[in-house]
Amino acid sequence: MTTFADIAPALERQAIELPSWAFGNSGTRFKVFTTPGTPRTPEEKIADAAKVNEYTALAPTVALHIPWDMVDDFAALSRFAEDHNVKLGTVNSNTFQDDVYKFGSLAHSDPAVRRKAIDHHLKCLEIMTEIGSRDLKIWLADGTNYPGQDDLRARQDHLAESLQEIYSQVSETQRLVLEYKFFEPAFYHTDVPDWGTSFAQVSALGDRAYTCLDTGHHAPGTNIEFIVMQLLRLGKLGSFDFNSRFYADDDLIVGAADPFQLFRIIVEVIRGGGLEVDSPVQFMLDQCHNVEDKIPGQIRSVLNVQEMTARALLVDRPALTAAQEAHDVLGANGILMDAFYTDVRPALASWREERGLPADPMAAYLASGNQSKIAAERVGGTQLSWSA
Amino acid sequence: MTTFADIAPALERQAIELPSWAFGNSGTRFKVFTTPGTPRTPEEKIADAAKVNEYTALAPTVALHIPWDMVDDFAALSRFAEDHNVKLGTVNSNTFQDDVYKFGSLAHSDPAVRRKAIDHHLKCLEIMTEIGSRDLKIWLADGTNYPGQDDLRARQDHLAESLQEIYSQVSETQRLVLEYKFFEPAFYHTDVPDWGTSFAQVSALGDRAYTCLDTGHHAPGTNIEFIVMQLLRLGKLGSFDFNSRFYADDDLIVGAADPFQLFRIIVEVIRGGGLEVDSPVQFMLDQCHNVEDKIPGQIRSVLNVQEMTARALLVDRPALTAAQEAHDVLGANGILMDAFYTDVRPALASWREERGLPADPMAAYLASGNQSKIAAERVGGTQLSWSA
Amino acid sequence: MTTFADIAPALERQAIELPSWAFGNSGTRFKVFTTPGTPRTPEEKIADAAKVNEYTALAPTVALHIPWDMVDDFAALSRFAEDHNVKLGTVNSNTFQDDVYKFGSLAHSDPAVRRKAIDHHLKCLEIMTEIGSRDLKIWLADGTNYPGQDDLRARQDHLAESLQEIYSQVSETQRLVLEYKFFEPAFYHTDVPDWGTSFAQVSALGDRAYTCLDTGHHAPGTNIEFIVMQLLRLGKLGSFDFNSRFYADDDLIVGAADPFQLFRIIVEVIRGGGLEVDSPVQFMLDQCHNVEDKIPGQIRSVLNVQEMTARALLVDRPALTAAQEAHDVLGANGILMDAFYTDVRPALASWREERGLPADPMAAYLASGNQSKIAAERVGGTQLSWSA
Amino acid sequence: MTTFADIAPALERQAIELPSWAFGNSGTRFKVFTTPGTPRTPEEKIADAAKVNEYTALAPTVALHIPWDMVDDFAALSRFAEDHNVKLGTVNSNTFQDDVYKFGSLAHSDPAVRRKAIDHHLKCLEIMTEIGSRDLKIWLADGTNYPGQDDLRARQDHLAESLQEIYSQVSETQRLVLEYKFFEPAFYHTDVPDWGTSFAQVSALGDRAYTCLDTGHHAPGTNIEFIVMQLLRLGKLGSFDFNSRFYADDDLIVGAADPFQLFRIIVEVIRGGGLEVDSPVQFMLDQCHNVEDKIPGQIRSVLNVQEMTARALLVDRPALTAAQEAHDVLGANGILMDAFYTDVRPALASWREERGLPADPMAAYLASGNQSKIAAERVGGTQLSWSA
Repeated sequence: MTTFADIAPALERQAIELPSWAFGNSGTRFKVFTTPGTPRTPEEKIADAAKVNEYTALAPTVALHIPWDMVDDFAALSRFAEDHNVKLGTVNSNTFQDDVYKFGSLAHSDPAVRRKAIDHHLKCLEIMTEIGSRDLKIWLADGTNYPGQDDLRARQDHLAESLQEIYSQVSETQRLVLEYKFFEPAFYHTDVPDWGTSFAQVSALGDRAYTCLDTGHHAPGTNIEFIVMQLLRLGKLGSFDFNSRFYADDDLIVGAADPFQLFRIIVEVIRGGGLEVDSPVQFMLDQCHNVEDKIPGQIRSVLNVQEMTARALLVDRPALTAAQEAHDVLGANGILMDAFYTDVRPALASWREERGLPADPMAAYLASGNQSKIAAERVGGTQLSWSA
Repeated sequence: MTTFADIAPALERQAIELPSWAFGNSGTRFKVFTTPGTPRTPEEKIADAAKVNEYTALAPTVALHIPWDMVDDFAALSRFAEDHNVKLGTVNSNTFQDDVYKFGSLAHSDPAVRRKAIDHHLKCLEIMTEIGSRDLKIWLADGTNYPGQDDLRARQDHLAESLQEIYSQVSETQRLVLEYKFFEPAFYHTDVPDWGTSFAQVSALGDRAYTCLDTGHHAPGTNIEFIVMQLLRLGKLGSFDFNSRFYADDDLIVGAADPFQLFRIIVEVIRGGGLEVDSPVQFMLDQCHNVEDKIPGQIRSVLNVQEMTARALLVDRPALTAAQEAHDVLGANGILMDAFYTDVRPALASWREERGLPADPMAAYLASGNQSKIAAERVGGTQLSWSA
Repeated sequence: MTTFADIAPALERQAIELPSWAFGNSGTRFKVFTTPGTPRTPEEKIADAAKVNEYTALAPTVALHIPWDMVDDFAALSRFAEDHNVKLGTVNSNTFQDDVYKFGSLAHSDPAVRRKAIDHHLKCLEIMTEIGSRDLKIWLADGTNYPGQDDLRARQDHLAESLQEIYSQVSETQRLVLEYKFFEPAFYHTDVPDWGTSFAQVSALGDRAYTCLDTGHHAPGTNIEFIVMQLLRLGKLGSFDFNSRFYADDDLIVGAADPFQLFRIIVEVIRGGGLEVDSPVQFMLDQCHNVEDKIPGQIRSVLNVQEMTARALLVDRPALTAAQEAHDVLGANGILMDAFYTDVRPALASWREERGLPADPMAAYLASGNQSKIAAERVGGTQLSWSA
Repeated sequence: MTTFADIAPALERQAIELPSWAFGNSGTRFKVFTTPGTPRTPEEKIADAAKVNEYTALAPTVALHIPWDMVDDFAALSRFAEDHNVKLGTVNSNTFQDDVYKFGSLAHSDPAVRRKAIDHHLKCLEIMTEIGSRDLKIWLADGTNYPGQDDLRARQDHLAESLQEIYSQVSETQRLVLEYKFFEPAFYHTDVPDWGTSFAQVSALGDRAYTCLDTGHHAPGTNIEFIVMQLLRLGKLGSFDFNSRFYADDDLIVGAADPFQLFRIIVEVIRGGGLEVDSPVQFMLDQCHNVEDKIPGQIRSVLNVQEMTARALLVDRPALTAAQEAHDVLGANGILMDAFYTDVRPALASWREERGLPADPMAAYLASGNQSKIAAERVGGTQLSWSA
């Protein structure tokens, strides 16, 4: 039997990067609701992210989105983060909000538009060098809405060339991570719709190019843990964008829609070495807190990942292997379910206290008064959202 | 064999209502792109809708969205429409953009919010009376994002009560039409997710309450023509919101994603009497022209419906029935496909010319120079979109 | 806080009917694998079902499938069951395996075929009267594979007439329960594809006609607990066919694919009174144990339902309502999740022992040697499957 | 403008392989209906396939399924085919109907089972050599039904090793083609679920290993033409299994469910060179005629592919490219739709007559009396189906 003491070292290593944009307002095409206390500057976003880390010790880094987090002095932003006990992490590019990108960016048929999009990524690499960030994460809104609107094959070739040029500027200590997405904002085709496409593209680039798996970016019914297994097996799983969904890319709190799926995903991460010391896998959230408070939403999210990781680590591997080899279907499944149904929360609470953390980070944060404090302080200015 | 002459009378009756909002800008949560010439006033939207009717004679009415089309003087707006040879049609309510509706409207747990939402609908009924509109169309964004967030059963009861109060003010010559939607903007549950719920709710109201079927509002794989058949059989199909989709509620041009599905839907409309003189079925578009021009997009849409209706009318009904009764699977299917594969475009072109319309309305509109004209004229002001 | 003592009475009332056919062989169109010890007679199926009840006290009744469970002397079969401490329950009709039903049964265009199908149901009612069974459950394979193959509207009318004739023979103490299914074995349309159709049909019949909800019979992404809520609200939820699925009608062990969905479903059952003493809701399994052992598969299934019911009963209702009314999204969701993540297994084990049952019914059954015993005894004869 | 004369050479080259098993009975797990005249021997299947070719000149080869088409003398079978003016083509292996394969074949954890499955494939290669067949097509039923049942990663590695051993025996003139499938008969995971997995596996093998794309083996909503484009771009599209679906792997007649999708797929085939003289792409049907007659069903299928190919070839490529480069969304889409809506049937009928074929192959076959002839002749014996 695996005990909590056995799994504590792995839990102690666990780090989940927070996206700066999760602290800004978000919504749907129908409405973006605002919330009191929403940040008006990149610094306020980082301060909020730092609160999550303060209460959980799970979120030591903050991912930036350029240009949403564009500042004049990135060195200063970096120091601001360190003053709040977090570091700046992955840099996410954005080629979907300029008018010029209406019909694509890195896959666009016009070389001038591709040039502009490539240059944006080179600028991101410069920022990364300045702040010591390792990963350039590329998610593209490129695609079309109508059959015939553009040439799928030519676009894929354009994409390959654009990525090649960007990759040529990725330094030895940096990585390029290419995300895929089933649909949205394009509604007929997207240029990187599935893991196979991302895998083919990054394999053509080289060793420092990886795939990013966003848990909300698949067709209905897709067995995501299989893809996790396969990408780890192929050495190409670079990062996770965690969230959850009932329908499309709902961007709900990770673990909220299908906790058992999250469990199975983490079981495969562990099986493939993704939690080990030298793992190439970067864990990150990518969520939208449309109707719930943002800092508590992020706390809930990292706790969900932590709790599910604890359950996944508790799987009795020798017993599981024995049952699998005996083709004891119900026995093997039962061993997995035993771990899933184990209530790890009391043990985690004690363990947190041993480490000087609140036993219940959610309750502690809510009791701290920070939510009213920022609501009172952050008056005036413009609350940040996806459009700025 | 059915000939074009046989089907012309039904085609002549065909009318497809245009949504005023289709002429404003729309987009996704990622970006709303603007287009030169986009209307800045309700009048400009109506003028654009009138252009569609001018070139096609298919779109004699324009649906309003309140408050997006709120004006001080609806009588004047009505005259403006008539001066452009169209009439104002269905009034669509909107209870999803006020901050107070963050957690629902007609299904909200707070009586004060429900009161406000009910009053909005009563105001819509007043406008309808003023402009001689028959249909109040209700689409609700009500729903929740997380399990447990609210009580599904209580919300359904609140909804029933709210609808009852609105229905009590629907006059003898008016109708209430309740739309359903699978998901979005709510991502865990919506309060009217399927035709069954709309049917149960409107059946409880009375004879002048109907269901609205939006072709993009179903689960993947749903047989929509079956629902058309069933609602016509039950006497509750009030209106169609036409559009098309590959994934979710993509709101693409009707017929663009799956033309054969549109054909099958119209076949069932005809089978159930929905194209007959006294049919209760109102045809309407509900689309978003995110990347294509809006007036041509609407022209393409009404033509798609007309062309598919012509094909559906050409189905050799006696032969089909004979093959069906003989359980000649391939024969019956073949008769349907024959109609679908018939190229009705030449006959429609001639028929349009006989009626003083351009043979090719798309080409004629594009050649008219109207697109450049409105782009040149409509400078300054604020282009309208969903948020205003 | 709700305690285990609070919820024990409801758990004690819980009864889950077992389908006789779950003990026979089943598979896919590709292959039906056999298992040693599979029953060769209806009596052996009942004996196996009785084993499940012996170890769990959760399964006091066995559903029959006619003609799969056809015997000359139903009174004798009934006594056989009682001798094994179970009773015969729901009778399931079967109109999908005679050649004459190739193109439908109750919805067939040919009155002679409908006559035969109706008569089959009248025969089922006779058997029900003989064995004291309350429910006639009707699941139809009726549908078509190709557009145009048959007339959807006429079939729906035929179905209504056929059901009316059957319903007219349902006695005061009996009920008719109509199941719906999204697809399979028909691949274009099914005649009862969704809850709305079943609801419309049974509403037209009368008070003793209900809907059966099979958890595997929905489109991808369907919010099943919403349908549970709605059918309970409308007074038409007659029974559940429990199973689970990742893709289609996979008929896996209930709770195996998405335990959190099962939890949400039972939460709505409780919310709507479905576990109360006078509830009209009959719980039943409908599963296929293609690769796992059958008796243990059924034990695992009823335990999954029991454990999830315990979790659902533990939801802190007053706290949940308070959080819902305060629109505390994360708080309300958290209260629900607290119950889901509670490990109820130790308390259930103790409670079982108090009642003279094994603490761990799965382990106890496996240790009993029954599996080898039946494998050794049941040699020769023909193992039963869906085709006999 | 492209004319019919321009496209005739490509149409003349078109060849669609027929699966021998399409002429046997097939069905669902609920029932396999029989049809008069169904073959009882591999020879009768080949004779039926030859009929399809006789009336259409579209189906010069017949694919075998081993062991369903196992005969003592393959040279004789080959001569039998040639006497009927067809040739034997692709050999399909079968590792899903022996009891030993209950838990997998090439991916099984037990080396002895893998050995047996590998040997089966080596035997297939021997048969291929004997009959001069180029392609060994591998579709695997391997997978699991329950999370935890087996180790996904180990299975993937076993699969790679097994394929490597088989591939080592593929001669210079032969190819290995690996099919993928989303689900069924396994309901939790399949070992080759998507094109990415097949691509990764065949890329590791070598130049004579390709992917097979079955149009019914994808998640709902998948953009299949994108995968066609990508596999052609990567040089790994080996063959197509054509069929159509509304829900799952329905195996309906190709083009029956979504003709526009079939059009888009063939447009991408042409765009990627898949119809050119030296194309590596083998076209093949893989369908189940559960309720319709089999020979007419296959004739309808090859005609659907031919008609859609004619439409796809008619796309005005220069105009399309110009509209795409101008980002004329509606114009480009309109050019595609023009080709789709062109009624190519009259031109095809004339062209067939010029070539000594019946103008309407379906009508000609039905009038030939062959269907009654085989029904009368083939009395006694055992009709073939998937299980033999």
